[in-house]
Amino acid sequence: MKYFARVEVKLKPGHSDPEGETTGSLLRELGYKIEEVCVSKVYTILLEAQTHSEARNKTEEMCKRLLANPTKDNYAIFIEEAQ
Amino acid sequence: MKYFARVEVKLKPGHSDPEGETTGSLLRELGYKIEEVCVSKVYTILLEAQTHSEARNKTEEMCKRLLANPTKDNYAIFIEEAQ
Repeated sequence: MKYFARVEVKLKPGHSDPEGETTGSLLRELGYKIEEVCVSKVYTILLEAQTHSEARNKTEEMCKRLLANPTKDNYAIFIEEAQ
Repeated sequence: MKYFARVEVKLKPGHSDPEGETTGSLLRELGYKIEEVCVSKVYTILLEAQTHSEARNKTEEMCKRLLANPTKDNYAIFIEEAQ
């Protein structure tokens, strides 16, 4: 079976987000009333697994091994069967 | 009023995604059965606007002026009232 795993990785609260700060400054210079900008990253992974829960477990493992930094990142996983 | 605008920017189909390709190769080297990885970016913007539709219009404008490249990116906008 094939599954889409959607992984959203974002900085934990309190960690500095230079890209978000720069984007916020640029938008303010363009005249927008912006209080804050946070930037996160989404990985959409098409993977092979036997079951929905195997897909979730493998994706959880990938986050820990490669996609997220446990010191500074939070992540959320959504699994969906691929057509 | 304050609103959260969530903007997801992703490459249009057919455009090469070097970060996704590299991530896919690394995951395969780690032993996962991966067919494809796509990477997109999410901006969460806390902005000031009079109404929900003004927030949407301003965010649409920000996408065109700064956040997305019309040649290669698609984007999706979600607006939510901030508490």
